[in-house]
This record gives sequence, structure tokens and C-alpha cells, in this order.
Amino acid sequence: MPLLKSWVASANDANHPFPLNNLPYGVFSTGEDDPRCGVAIGDMILDIAAAEAEGLIALTDYPLFDVPYWNDLMEEGPAVWAALRERLTALLAKGSKEQEAVEPLLVPMAEATLHMPLVVSEYTDFYAGKQHAQNMGAILRGSPDLPANWLHIPIGYNGRASSVVVSGTPIHRPNGQTKAPDAEMPSFGPSKRLDIELEMGAIVGTGSEFGQPITVDEADAMIFGYVLLNDWSARDIQGWEYQPLGPFQGKAFGTSISPWIVTAAALEPFRAPTPPREKQLLPYLSGSKDGLYNIELEVLMQPEGADHASVIARTNYSRMYYSAAEQLCHHAIGGCAMNAGDLLGSGTISGPDRTEFGSLMELSWAGREPFTLETGETRGFIEDGDTLTLRGNARGDGYTIGFGDCVGQILPAKAWG
Amino acid sequence: MPLLKSWVASANDANHPFPLNNLPYGVFSTGEDDPRCGVAIGDMILDIAAAEAEGLIALTDYPLFDVPYWNDLMEEGPAVWAALRERLTALLAKGSKEQEAVEPLLVPMAEATLHMPLVVSEYTDFYAGKQHAQNMGAILRGSPDLPANWLHIPIGYNGRASSVVVSGTPIHRPNGQTKAPDAEMPSFGPSKRLDIELEMGAIVGTGSEFGQPITVDEADAMIFGYVLLNDWSARDIQGWEYQPLGPFQGKAFGTSISPWIVTAAALEPFRAPTPPREKQLLPYLSGSKDGLYNIELEVLMQPEGADHASVIARTNYSRMYYSAAEQLCHHAIGGCAMNAGDLLGSGTISGPDRTEFGSLMELSWAGREPFTLETGETRGFIEDGDTLTLRGNARGDGYTIGFGDCVGQILPAKAWG
Repeated sequence: MPLLKSWVASANDANHPFPLNNLPYGVFSTGEDDPRCGVAIGDMILDIAAAEAEGLIALTDYPLFDVPYWNDLMEEGPAVWAALRERLTALLAKGSKEQEAVEPLLVPMAEATLHMPLVVSEYTDFYAGKQHAQNMGAILRGSPDLPANWLHIPIGYNGRASSVVVSGTPIHRPNGQTKAPDAEMPSFGPSKRLDIELEMGAIVGTGSEFGQPITVDEADAMIFGYVLLNDWSARDIQGWEYQPLGPFQGKAFGTSISPWIVTAAALEPFRAPTPPREKQLLPYLSGSKDGLYNIELEVLMQPEGADHASVIARTNYSRMYYSAAEQLCHHAIGGCAMNAGDLLGSGTISGPDRTEFGSLMELSWAGREPFTLETGETRGFIEDGDTLTLRGNARGDGYTIGFGDCVGQILPAKAWG
Repeated sequence: MPLLKSWVASANDANHPFPLNNLPYGVFSTGEDDPRCGVAIGDMILDIAAAEAEGLIALTDYPLFDVPYWNDLMEEGPAVWAALRERLTALLAKGSKEQEAVEPLLVPMAEATLHMPLVVSEYTDFYAGKQHAQNMGAILRGSPDLPANWLHIPIGYNGRASSVVVSGTPIHRPNGQTKAPDAEMPSFGPSKRLDIELEMGAIVGTGSEFGQPITVDEADAMIFGYVLLNDWSARDIQGWEYQPLGPFQGKAFGTSISPWIVTAAALEPFRAPTPPREKQLLPYLSGSKDGLYNIELEVLMQPEGADHASVIARTNYSRMYYSAAEQLCHHAIGGCAMNAGDLLGSGTISGPDRTEFGSLMELSWAGREPFTLETGETRGFIEDGDTLTLRGNARGDGYTIGFGDCVGQILPAKAWG
């Protein structure tokens, strides 16, 4: 598919993240206005709530977009999702007869504040990157051997939805309980091993019934779209707490997502297969479609006061072993009800080369081998004031599907006690 | 405190679970009516939505009770919770001048259907019973030694809110992935080791801010009330999946709660201390109040077709090592935002004697030593058609604070594949 041309000129640049082929969904406000749904096109945001109010978009008998989240659209299901995309494409395409009516409804993105694009119903995080799992094994247990179940189960755990925040929200370094290996007693204070995890987040659009399993193909059709996701992690808190029931406070102080939901429809041309199965998966985990996507990913780090950010890792979403559809199928296989707005973190995305590692834990090998930024500073883990950015782009034939950066700055821990 | 007498005669029996001292909050419907908020008093339910509509209860300028959940009241905070309790007590007390106005608003409980009393915002399950942790260690790892962090951290993991259902909801035996120790490959099918966990559920009433830790005393004041909670568990699925990130599908097919929220205010006379600390807790986990409650608990089991249920365990909530307030404080200590409607499972409640064990895993020692029901049948784990009931009562001076049974029947697994 080539670039689809829009009458919004900025959308026609081959490197712009928001061409007509993309049409990602966000929530924005300007000045004192209430946050409402918007669609990115070039450097502009279409105020879709206003477009609906004026009758330019009329998918349902009731309004869908005059709310600060996209969950209402998700619940309408794939036919309405497709109808909206078709209508938006018609309204914004070069030569559209409705350009004059739509033009006044565009807001410059530079003047808008972006908010959480959805109400996160529940949040689940997975562990589906093989290189990452091997690296963590080598670092923490001295062996890259995968856990016995890893090649059979897309391993996941429930995270905390209330910790999910939109890009730009500052994150305080968490206080928590840790124990040094040689200490007799644990101690309490700010985390000293603060990290990121580079992930994609899949957003469930249509739910499943309590007690009713789903197939991988059904799961694939239930996914509404994707965001970039930074699963901030306090490695020292996590290391002391996680046996035997998994991560808890080490992962609960913040999870950042990019502000635009890139729809599964926009990513369709970029489908990529999962790698060859090293052990045959059980039949319930088989689907008919390529479940990953070819999305180039970057991590950037900028210390406070530095004049620019350094790229510290570059990899690709297609490096994962399990797809979001496989994860979602496994999530519901025992009868767990899935709902619109559920967010599934892919797990940390790391490629085979050291420049492709998606966490500082891996990049600095647990702090033992600090890496150097372009500005000359070195890092093992995150220091107060550092800003971390995730960036993602799918590269098409003369166009780019971008996600909008996922940015977060770490602030000092709050005083306590 | 003695029995408070009500003009609802059935509420004045010393053994009735719902005297005027209790006033638990539920959601009910009759016939084709929409579910709405109600308060249990003796054998009756006060239609509090109707009482509010008629002006008998007027706590706010907007309605709080004409909805199928108690979350709106929770968000009003402790002062409004106390005002409601005071007003209900006045309306329903023997000698109330408003008896005539209130009487038509009572609905016989026998004619009502009970629904989920709240919208569960997020669900967290803890592991705070020492006897249970030691039993599980002995069964699974051959040693009753506690995990190294157990005496320092109220260990918890995030569960799945969408799996929480009200008492009476049937639960299908889940399908899932398991692996026998001697098998080369895992297999897929119905769980063969289906279990319960006897727990109390604490309901968070007022939330905390993202990034803002809380103290144990603040946490204590944030708790709105308690329910009985059955954390159904598929031990074979859990055993294969839980390393390294904790329980997932082994716990996601259903979590049952009793239909009435017993308020923290009603339980106030029953506060009980946590046991002596075997290791001193870090200062952030210290509070000024006794955080447990003296609540007698029973587990009953009834095979399909049996003429009565057998008591299979009897214990007490005060057997726990950590209180809900300590758990809630720890939950928020890194900055995790807590919200009205968050549900915290206590962890399995087991006392030191074998008759006090709160799961079949412990009662049958992993199925190796099946127990015998009064009807002569034996059980290691749950069989299809079995009904499991949790019952809880706090015994006062001439009155009882009951919870209403938490009941669930296991149905056969759904066909799959």
C-alpha cells in the first residue's frame, strides 16, 4: 500500500508519523476545554467529538466521542471500527468534498495537551521476549537457560491498571523494601536500581465472556490497537519481593504508554510471523495469521541538563517469540473474562545484539558494565532527572506509521517517615 | 456492646446474622426490577434506593443508591459512611418514629436475588497466613520453612478483577495447560486438582493518590468493609505456570465473594491483634490499631445429590499474620494509586490444627490423604457437582455479625478444541 494523500499537507511527508494511512486515536484538550477524543492527521488533531456533533460522523444513534476515552468505540466492535476508519479516510483524503466542513475542526497538535487515550480496564504484563528471558536468566541466575515452561506458555502476570499513565507524566522514584544479599535484615528507602522495559501494549477492544475460552484467531480480531509501553521497574524491590508470587511493588509505581492508539487496521500491512517454534505449541495456541508486526523501536535517554537525548537501544517488535493474539488467547483459556480497555504488555523487547537490549538491566548487565551516552555520561541504572523515551515506527512504501513518543522523567523519591 | 433492638422482629435473634448491629450492604432485585442497593435487617432487605427517593435518607444533593453498586457511597468517605450508619440505625431501631414510613420499603430476603455488591476496581490477593505458607512449603517443597521475605513483607500479587463473581454463580472447571513431573511435554485439558482458598476480602473505600504512599493507620481508615472470599485455585495449572512470575490462569477462572459487605464499623467491637512479630517489621508497616478481627469461619462441602453439606474446616480470621491495613499500606508504599472498590484477598486462612486448614490442598495434603465427608464420600480435590460454602460470623454479647454464605458449585469443564 502506498502513501494515501491527505489535504492536510503535513500528513504527506514520507517520514511523518501520522499520515492518512495511520489515523491513530487519542484524547486531547486545549486551554480550559474538557478532554475529548481526537484523531491525529499530520501536525493536526481532528476534533472528532465536534465532527460527530456536526453530523460529519454518524456511526451510532448515540454519541461515541464526547468523552475522554475511546472505550465506547471499542465496545461497538470491529464493524464499527472499520466504518469509522473508512469515514475518516474519506473526510481527510485529498480531494474530499467535505474538506471545507472539516477544516475548522482541526486543532494544531502543538497547542493541545494529550491525555490517557483509554480507561485501562485491567493491565497484564507478559514475558514473551526470548532474548530478554535468556539475558535475565544469565544475569540473575548465572544461566541463560529458559524456565521449563517458557517455550510452552506465553508467561504473564497481572499488573496494576491504576499505575498506567500517559506519556509525559513524571514518575517519582519509588520507596520500597529491599535487602542486600549480605544484609541480615531488609531496609526501606528509594530504589537504587531503577529501570525501564521497552514493550508494546496491545489494547483489547471487544471482550470475552466469563467462563468462555477463545481461539487465537478470535483473539486477533479482538485487538483494537497498540501503544508503546514503558514498564518502569525497580529491580532491587522486585528482586526481594518476587518469590514466590511474582512482581508487585517493583512494578506498581508507574507504567507509561504513548498517547496515540495505533489501530490494528493501520498496522495490517506490517504483520510479521513469530519465529520458528523451538517446541511445538499446544493446539489451543495456534492461529492462522502472522501475529507480530514489523515495528522499529528505539530507546533514548537524556540526563537532566544534557543538550540532547542519546539512543541507547534499537530493536524491532518482530523479535518477540509470542504474539499479542497468542497471549490474549492464553489469558482467556481458563475462562477469565476479557474486557474492552484491557491492556496487555508484550514483555521486554530485546534483540540478539547488545545494542538491541530493551532494558538497562541488560544494557549495563545489572550495572556491572555501565554504558556511555553521547554526552559522555555513563549509566548503570536511571538517575534522578533522567528522561527516558520510547519511539516506534513502521516503515511503509513512502510512508511511516508512527506511535508518538512515550516519554517519562524520573523525579526524586518522595520523603517518607 | 449489646444487641441493638430493631422493630424488624427477626433481627433480634441472638444468632441471626443480620441484627441492627450489622446493617450490611448489598445489591438486590425482585422480579423484573433493576438491581439496586439494599441493606439487610433480619430476614428483610431495606430498599435504600426507595428510602432515598422518598427523602428518608438524604446524605448528599445527588442520589447515591439507585445504582447496582456501593462504590458511589464509598467515594463519599468515612464521614458520610458514619452518617449513613447512624441514620439507618435510627430508622430501624425499636421505637423509631419513622417505622410506618420505612415498613413498606422492606422486601423479604427470600424473594430477592442478590447481585455483586460493588464494581471491583482491581483485585489483589495476599499470602498472609503463616500456617498456610508453611503447609504449602511442606507440601510443595518438602520443607515448612517460610520464604526468606515472608516475615518482612505482606506478600501479594495482582489478581483479575473480571473473575470476581457473587456467591451463587456457578464456576466451570477450567481448562488449562499442565505438565506431569515425569511427562516430556505439557498437555491441555480440565484441571484435575481443583481447590478452594478460604479468605476474607477487604474492600477499599477511599483511594490514595498516584505517587503518594500511605501509613498503616491511614490504610485502616480507608477500608470500607469486608466480605468472605473464595479464591478458587487450579493447583495443577498453577504449579506449571507460576515460575517465575506468579499465579495467572490457575487463579483466573473465578473468585467468589459473599453478597453482603459487612462494614468495618460493624466489625469494630471484634478487632483482634496480629500475633507477635517473629521478626521486627520495618517502621512503615507499623500502625496503632489491632488490625485483625475475631471472625469464626467455616468451610462446608456438599457433593451433588448428597442430602447435606459437611463442615470440612473451622478456623478464625484472627489466625492471620498480617492485617488488611498492613497489606493496603504495603500495596501503596511505592506510589501505586488505590481506588474505591479495590478488593484485597487476605490470603488463605489456616489455623495450626488440621481441622483448621483453609484449602483442600492442605486438608488432603495434596490429595495424598483424602478426607471423609459426613455422607461417607472421600475427597482429595473438588469433583464436578460439588458445592463449596464459606460461612463467617463474629459473635458479640447476645448478637451475631454474619456475612451471608459464599457459595459456589463446580460445573464440568466446557468442551474445547
